Amino acid sequence: VNTNIKLSLPVVCFVWQLSMIILFGVFVRYNEESDTHWVDYRKENNITSDIENDYYFRYPSFQDVHVMIFVGFGFLMTFLKRYSFGAVGFNFLVAAFGIQWALLMQGWFHSLDYTDGKIKIGIENLINADFCVAGCLIAYGAVLGKVSPVQLLVMTLFGVTLFAVEEYIILNVLHAKDAGGSMVIHTFGAYYGLSISWVLYRPNLDKSKHLNGSVYHSDVFAMIGTLFLWMFWPSFNSAIADHGDGQHRAAINTYLALASTVLTTVAMSSLFEKTGKLDMVHIQNSTLAGGVAVGTAAEFMLSPYGSLIVGFFCGIISTLGYIYFSPFLEEKLKIQDTCGIHNLHAMPGVIGGIVGAISAAAATNTVYGDLGLENTFDFTGPFAKRVPTIQGGYQAAGLCVALCFGIGGGIFVGLVLKLPIWGDPADENCFDDEIYWEVPEDEESVPPILAYNNHMIPNKHADM
Amino acid sequence: VNTNIKLSLPVVCFVWQLSMIILFGVFVRYNEESDTHWVDYRKENNITSDIENDYYFRYPSFQDVHVMIFVGFGFLMTFLKRYSFGAVGFNFLVAAFGIQWALLMQGWFHSLDYTDGKIKIGIENLINADFCVAGCLIAYGAVLGKVSPVQLLVMTLFGVTLFAVEEYIILNVLHAKDAGGSMVIHTFGAYYGLSISWVLYRPNLDKSKHLNGSVYHSDVFAMIGTLFLWMFWPSFNSAIADHGDGQHRAAINTYLALASTVLTTVAMSSLFEKTGKLDMVHIQNSTLAGGVAVGTAAEFMLSPYGSLIVGFFCGIISTLGYIYFSPFLEEKLKIQDTCGIHNLHAMPGVIGGIVGAISAAAATNTVYGDLGLENTFDFTGPFAKRVPTIQGGYQAAGLCVALCFGIGGGIFVGLVLKLPIWGDPADENCFDDEIYWEVPEDEESVPPILAYNNHMIPNKHADM
Amino acid sequence: VNTNIKLSLPVVCFVWQLSMIILFGVFVRYNEESDTHWVDYRKENNITSDIENDYYFRYPSFQDVHVMIFVGFGFLMTFLKRYSFGAVGFNFLVAAFGIQWALLMQGWFHSLDYTDGKIKIGIENLINADFCVAGCLIAYGAVLGKVSPVQLLVMTLFGVTLFAVEEYIILNVLHAKDAGGSMVIHTFGAYYGLSISWVLYRPNLDKSKHLNGSVYHSDVFAMIGTLFLWMFWPSFNSAIADHGDGQHRAAINTYLALASTVLTTVAMSSLFEKTGKLDMVHIQNSTLAGGVAVGTAAEFMLSPYGSLIVGFFCGIISTLGYIYFSPFLEEKLKIQDTCGIHNLHAMPGVIGGIVGAISAAAATNTVYGDLGLENTFDFTGPFAKRVPTIQGGYQAAGLCVALCFGIGGGIFVGLVLKLPIWGDPADENCFDDEIYWEVPEDEESVPPILAYNNHMIPNKHADM
Repeated sequence: VNTNIKLSLPVVCFVWQLSMIILFGVFVRYNEESDTHWVDYRKENNITSDIENDYYFRYPSFQDVHVMIFVGFGFLMTFLKRYSFGAVGFNFLVAAFGIQWALLMQGWFHSLDYTDGKIKIGIENLINADFCVAGCLIAYGAVLGKVSPVQLLVMTLFGVTLFAVEEYIILNVLHAKDAGGSMVIHTFGAYYGLSISWVLYRPNLDKSKHLNGSVYHSDVFAMIGTLFLWMFWPSFNSAIADHGDGQHRAAINTYLALASTVLTTVAMSSLFEKTGKLDMVHIQNSTLAGGVAVGTAAEFMLSPYGSLIVGFFCGIISTLGYIYFSPFLEEKLKIQDTCGIHNLHAMPGVIGGIVGAISAAAATNTVYGDLGLENTFDFTGPFAKRVPTIQGGYQAAGLCVALCFGIGGGIFVGLVLKLPIWGDPADENCFDDEIYWEVPEDEESVPPILAYNNHMIPNKHADM
Repeated sequence: VNTNIKLSLPVVCFVWQLSMIILFGVFVRYNEESDTHWVDYRKENNITSDIENDYYFRYPSFQDVHVMIFVGFGFLMTFLKRYSFGAVGFNFLVAAFGIQWALLMQGWFHSLDYTDGKIKIGIENLINADFCVAGCLIAYGAVLGKVSPVQLLVMTLFGVTLFAVEEYIILNVLHAKDAGGSMVIHTFGAYYGLSISWVLYRPNLDKSKHLNGSVYHSDVFAMIGTLFLWMFWPSFNSAIADHGDGQHRAAINTYLALASTVLTTVAMSSLFEKTGKLDMVHIQNSTLAGGVAVGTAAEFMLSPYGSLIVGFFCGIISTLGYIYFSPFLEEKLKIQDTCGIHNLHAMPGVIGGIVGAISAAAATNTVYGDLGLENTFDFTGPFAKRVPTIQGGYQAAGLCVALCFGIGGGIFVGLVLKLPIWGDPADENCFDDEIYWEVPEDEESVPPILAYNNHMIPNKHADM
Repeated sequence: VNTNIKLSLPVVCFVWQLSMIILFGVFVRYNEESDTHWVDYRKENNITSDIENDYYFRYPSFQDVHVMIFVGFGFLMTFLKRYSFGAVGFNFLVAAFGIQWALLMQGWFHSLDYTDGKIKIGIENLINADFCVAGCLIAYGAVLGKVSPVQLLVMTLFGVTLFAVEEYIILNVLHAKDAGGSMVIHTFGAYYGLSISWVLYRPNLDKSKHLNGSVYHSDVFAMIGTLFLWMFWPSFNSAIADHGDGQHRAAINTYLALASTVLTTVAMSSLFEKTGKLDMVHIQNSTLAGGVAVGTAAEFMLSPYGSLIVGFFCGIISTLGYIYFSPFLEEKLKIQDTCGIHNLHAMPGVIGGIVGAISAAAATNTVYGDLGLENTFDFTGPFAKRVPTIQGGYQAAGLCVALCFGIGGGIFVGLVLKLPIWGDPADENCFDDEIYWEVPEDEESVPPILAYNNHMIPNKHADM
């Protein structure tokens, strides 16, 4: 197997980045709130203060989301004993690559100014680009350690494209709501990754079984990822919610769902391990399931106890997924899912879509208020006559769209990635940073008895 | 000793979480700023912009506090060589458990809407719940490595309850001010933990002495905790301060006190170690003492140099505490304080209470302005006639209340935890993740000479 | 060589901190937005809401910058296998020391209230103090592992002083703009550090060559620094930009430049390593170059594709710097640059200054709008008649000032640091935490064959 990417990786990066520059040159400009004409716009529109610039509504959430994408996803995947460089480094590469393409794709669908044919970007576009990339990073979790960086870039190129289309269909055509992206991001991303992994099935993967596990410190590194995801998830679900009560409520709902998930995850983990010990895999992953599942309904009047209930079940289901469903997926369905994204993103994402559909269908004027109902579901313009029950149906349709795009797109992209030109590792070299990284020589790796006979070991600093 | 928690841990988690769902269902609703009726409320109250929703005043601080609770406290305790899972994992569990109970307990005392008997929550409640849990996490520092997760949950259940009561007495009955919680959080939490540790004294703890220390990388992990606590402490002390100048001033005071503390901590650490070397224990902990001590007075006109002075002395006192007082506590008073919370939270907390009392008593209309004085100390309603000197007295009374609740509550809870039903570790198994966690086999742990004779060592990846 | 700093370090810290307290007592007060008189000020000035306090415009950015200074710079330097304590710990000390002096120095130049001779501080001063310290931390990168903490403090004392003067000349006298500090912070800081390193050249540094490199986990720690710098750089460049569109645009430009840099860094790294492997040194450092280079022009109408172009070239140049220029610097110019700050800060900083000058000179009323142009470049008061082309000239002049102060100041300070009184390490002890820190005994460091013969190894926990 040829894992040399000396030609392909630089070429893809350069060609891609040059294309981005050209496309941005042709299409992308600042929007009215990030352009120097804001000062005129403010005057003309009687905006009383600079603080009403959308920047101040969304920037703190944006930065939290940014941390989730780069540190959260990146470090969550460092749990493997010898794939931390690949986890955090390729995550970095893929995200930086994807956000640019996302700004264009989402821009064409959502932010195109028809007067001059330009995409006008502001802070909300940056958040949406980060969201879009999240879908691809979720997919990366399924194939972690088994693909080359070039394959990841191809996966991201197609992933972002598919994402932008399904997002347009779900949010604009169907007019479904999905503030935290349970459907648009998590369901799509997870099934996209799982389908790719299914196509790329490696029957002899146990040749690198000795590397497909953690060591003590790599598990602690992974907790950095877990915690930053967990802590900032309220920002994720509220980042593009409506100004005012929308963002406020989304943050509260997410905070509560996640707290609930932690307790049921711990309970299940302890229940299924001998002598009640806890398993780091569950703590690192299943504790996040509540955030995924409350994504769609975060903005709705789910009510605090509703959020707790969603979190309660997701902690249980996700942990059971790691215990029973992941081995089943691998053995029976031939889906090798390195990070267990089926348990963290796929199932909770689908649950989130269903919760969203039900809670939308159950919305009433009494609970929301007349204005509140119109506001929350944007029953305006062409959708002015839509009622909650119908909205619930469209929410459910949205979930189906996400599933179809994820599975269909994943199979297609998986077939592309099967071409023998991408430099992917042999079965015995999976989960090994040596293949794509200059790895520092850890001096302790010299067989100790030999080391002791030469000059190396007596230097006590040398063997950290 | 039976450390099997296979029954007790899941039962406690499930029963607890179900109770939370029921109680939230009965009691907890969104407040007017997080409810869809906000849009009506805004109109009725002539609020000109969504940006005046309390969410935008407090959300950035909230997220910083959230990081302090989960990453800050969690990673600060990872310094032990083999208790990083317990440090960061149980911290996670305890905090997720505690915030729910805190929302209820604090809600009944502070956010109960008497018209419908519901607790109405918004962003400030989330911050206060995080604060409340901070008290319990401080207490965890004293017993780190010596208790079971079930004991921690019991400790948190009682801790949050006691916290809510003492907080109500101090802030509402006595009408003392304590923006950063020097008294309410740090003094209470620290004495609560120290009292528990005193009751749970283990005379033979040196059986696990070899694990009660750090290794190189665990000390670096702990610095993640230290730095996130240090950096975000200005947010902690300003998170629930008054809008406008109150939050602004609290952040400045805390920033300065912490900077000052770093220098005196380094000076003392160097002064007391041979050849002037620095001790990581001091750098990890004592550098934070200034943030604790400036908590109560952060909102006051302490003035920038006043903050520096507070930080100056706390760095010295806290470092001396680690050098002289911790051994004394352990040998003479039989208080085993794993993380040295007496030096980081107890002494600086008491100092903070005293600084608060003095600076409140010394407040004048000249310095504060008439309106500013009334505003800062809330001399309104039933307290309209209170004057600064009297306020100083009530501040001091508040400190005593915190001490009494901490010590009294701690002794009571300690006795509860002494019951032989909680699955706590034997003396020789303290500070060891093996007891409650599935710990990955580090292949290097095989005695090297044997390893060399079989297949393991030649694989260089295996021994990280 | 005497590395005992038992006297010098405590004395410097105490004397310094006491001086700070006195100077703050004489000079520093709250400004009108952080003082209790804000409540009166608001009324008098018809400010409609507390949310218009500058605190709410800048606090989220401030906290992000704070994280960059303490975690970003600190962890970026943890890559050395045995200098992580020094990296993160001395970074902490230097920054805490420097921000206080910066508040005074910058305060005298920028925030002095001539009516009462006091420096009036608010949130913007805290950000500027962090910025000022960033210059010194950049310089620390060049001498990492080769100086004592006392030398670092001296370097910071002079560095902050020089910074405040050059900043005053560039921003106030020349009236150049430099929101993200390409010139003021990066160019100055990098040449300051490189010049010091040049004066302190150690011909026999290869005696500690075995410690001048990374191990697997230390590279992962360094990625924490890289990512927090990368993610929060949009906040860095927008933190003190104009309210409204200024901050908004600066964030967008930086986000894009950084994304572009990642791709070209990866491309170049892969291109120049055998079989296309990636080098962690490049990923950790060169990916940040775009943020540096877009600093000056971040606030300008650089346009999104302009930002991508800047990032594109900086990723290439910075990576080439690590491959070709660093060895050249060391061998030919006798500049030993531990962290490669020449590639991360010096070259991109200079590029940033040039980009700033060109884009200022090219500004037109058509692109900016009349009001927008005046606003962005502050063509008001004594500068009301300045036009963009002239502004471009002043920008270029600003770059020269930064270079002169950096090189001149660095040579001077280097000579001061050459005095044999500062306790710096011998050539064979460079890059070694043992010299200035109590380092925990890692039990694995016992030669394994001996360990096996005594009691230590059989305890499997002991050898992490």
